[in-house]
Amino acid sequence: MISDKMYELGSVRSSIRELFEYGKEAAKRVGKENVYDFSLGNPVTPPPSELTEAMIDILKNDEPCSVHGYTSAQGDFETRRAISENLNKRYCAKISPDRIYMTCGAAASLSITFRALVSSDKDEIIAVAPFFPEYKVFVEGAGAKFRVVPPDTEKFGINVKELEKQLTENTVALIINSPNNPSGAIVSEENLVLVSELLKRKSKEFGHTIYIISDEPYREITYGKETPYIPEIYKDTVICYSYSKSLSLPGERIGYIAIPDGVSEIDRLYAAICGAGRSLGYVCAPSFMQKVVAKCTDITSDISLYKKNRDILYSSLTEFGYECVMPEGAFYLFVKAPGGDSRAFSTLAKENNLLIVPGDDFGCPGYLRVSYCVSYDMILRSLPTFKKLVSEQGKE
Amino acid sequence: MISDKMYELGSVRSSIRELFEYGKEAAKRVGKENVYDFSLGNPVTPPPSELTEAMIDILKNDEPCSVHGYTSAQGDFETRRAISENLNKRYCAKISPDRIYMTCGAAASLSITFRALVSSDKDEIIAVAPFFPEYKVFVEGAGAKFRVVPPDTEKFGINVKELEKQLTENTVALIINSPNNPSGAIVSEENLVLVSELLKRKSKEFGHTIYIISDEPYREITYGKETPYIPEIYKDTVICYSYSKSLSLPGERIGYIAIPDGVSEIDRLYAAICGAGRSLGYVCAPSFMQKVVAKCTDITSDISLYKKNRDILYSSLTEFGYECVMPEGAFYLFVKAPGGDSRAFSTLAKENNLLIVPGDDFGCPGYLRVSYCVSYDMILRSLPTFKKLVSEQGKE
Repeated sequence: MISDKMYELGSVRSSIRELFEYGKEAAKRVGKENVYDFSLGNPVTPPPSELTEAMIDILKNDEPCSVHGYTSAQGDFETRRAISENLNKRYCAKISPDRIYMTCGAAASLSITFRALVSSDKDEIIAVAPFFPEYKVFVEGAGAKFRVVPPDTEKFGINVKELEKQLTENTVALIINSPNNPSGAIVSEENLVLVSELLKRKSKEFGHTIYIISDEPYREITYGKETPYIPEIYKDTVICYSYSKSLSLPGERIGYIAIPDGVSEIDRLYAAICGAGRSLGYVCAPSFMQKVVAKCTDITSDISLYKKNRDILYSSLTEFGYECVMPEGAFYLFVKAPGGDSRAFSTLAKENNLLIVPGDDFGCPGYLRVSYCVSYDMILRSLPTFKKLVSEQGKE
Repeated sequence: MISDKMYELGSVRSSIRELFEYGKEAAKRVGKENVYDFSLGNPVTPPPSELTEAMIDILKNDEPCSVHGYTSAQGDFETRRAISENLNKRYCAKISPDRIYMTCGAAASLSITFRALVSSDKDEIIAVAPFFPEYKVFVEGAGAKFRVVPPDTEKFGINVKELEKQLTENTVALIINSPNNPSGAIVSEENLVLVSELLKRKSKEFGHTIYIISDEPYREITYGKETPYIPEIYKDTVICYSYSKSLSLPGERIGYIAIPDGVSEIDRLYAAICGAGRSLGYVCAPSFMQKVVAKCTDITSDISLYKKNRDILYSSLTEFGYECVMPEGAFYLFVKAPGGDSRAFSTLAKENNLLIVPGDDFGCPGYLRVSYCVSYDMILRSLPTFKKLVSEQGKE
């Protein structure tokens, strides 16, 4: 009486995790310095020192039963107020603390939002390729059908014509992830305006709201260009956020869902989010971390390291003959597979202890994700291998 | 397109939460010292000082990217090893670190285990009244049918004859919560042996394993009598644990699932648990707290306060004329409602600013839960009201 579906999900490793585990084994064999692991999105820049200081300060001075006690299911009110004030200041947003729901990170934010929106197994949620592979797991976990808009490999924006083909009367939401994992692209304002017009037209046609779920863990990881604030362009947008990347806290599982004023059926939606959190077993987000992030809404980890990594990788790889779009945010470079076969190239790279993830699982075969939240030194050491691989490919 | 079911779960407050919120309002009106709030199970004894010291030590000395980075989905190996060694030492248990799965607390442990075991909407999971009301939410959230064994109000053990009536070919698991919330009872070894014999017989008859899910957040909160180690009596037992009560960390959401050696289909079950965690959006348990509890497997908060509370409440209330079974663990007294109507008595008590929860939601009408994880002084102040209420009831 064990679930086949859950067994399968638990026994099949993702290709990312597979490569990462391979890397750990390879390091034992050939030495850590000779393995170039670009597989994971685990931040390498530490949390800001203010954060560690805030943690120690709370532990030394606050009343422990209150620090570690249950918060309300929505989250500590002071934390929600700090977040709402920060968003309202930065984006002229209109988000009430009473429309913020603290979560155990981005995966929880998404799972809870999907569950709140799905009421029948006919319901559909759409992602845009390339997309974070776990979206499919969470959408299907919520009981909905997962649909995919094929990639726009020119700019890695949203192909509006292709999106229109995927919209049906069963569509409940579209997931937008900008800056994007794995492409590093920021969806432009012009592109978002077109998407918004289409969704408005289709919501009217189908007689129900199609929500945008804006998955924004990389919101602050940008290199010059700002990420457009989507609720300003499309009012029916639910924000899913995580501090994993901006404060380098991926293991702490802390984030939130925010519903801006004006979202259709806002009271009903917020209550359903509370209900979905309850149903999935999320009693409250970790209480101590809630108090910590409340003191850190204005800061991020030092992301200059990522910019330096991006610049050396982009300039070197394009010089060697790789093709890729310059990433504007996040910490991934999405490279066209030399020779065209991304799985084959990833395997070849792996044989040379260079670990890069084929785009196939992201819904974008023919590309490879190079995750550059790694040390600068490792990038420098890896460059000869990158060069060798592309030139070998050229000879075939 | 918002889920009615989730909306309902999010907009209807539990009666416990309802009373607690009422108490906060009443405190504003009549003064905090005049409200006797016995509604919540929020520990009042702080975490042990060794825990806070361990937290500060890790923050000051360990490498921050490793402290706050992703752990494997199952949890940090060192933490799982520390827990397995501790359990094996205390119970002569046989639990491998590779069969422990770290979770975001008890609710997550249960939700994930239910989801792993349920493969069809015909599947049934059984609880024994009185039971923690959220069991129903988590079981139904996993897509199964929730069944209840009526209470044994003599000892608050498990009525084996009644249990037999609830077992069907669709039963996948029986939840046992000992020490029990809300009765404070510890299920005796003799009782567990009878349950075990029945489950073995029925598993054979139905041709599939019926698992026991042992929900043990109160395992260490006992007053003299030890909690029997269930896997020793029934091998197909999955342990769901949380540090919420033993280390006074309810807000931190940290616990685990452990599958002892010998459990039927152990590999398949463990993989399904990993899959269920993934499907529900639990990426990993909070990483910093994983490292902290690894250093605190041998300690608990000071629970002598709870014993002192139990003793004064039990002796005073029985002296006043209340009827109740002496609780052997947890921090609840389950009192027979004077007059027989628990909702009416709870309302009467509320009008006197005494907040006690009717047993109806725990599947046991006619009883009231008095949660004594409160200050000793508040208990002393509340006694005249307890006395007045029972004598008034006697006059009617």
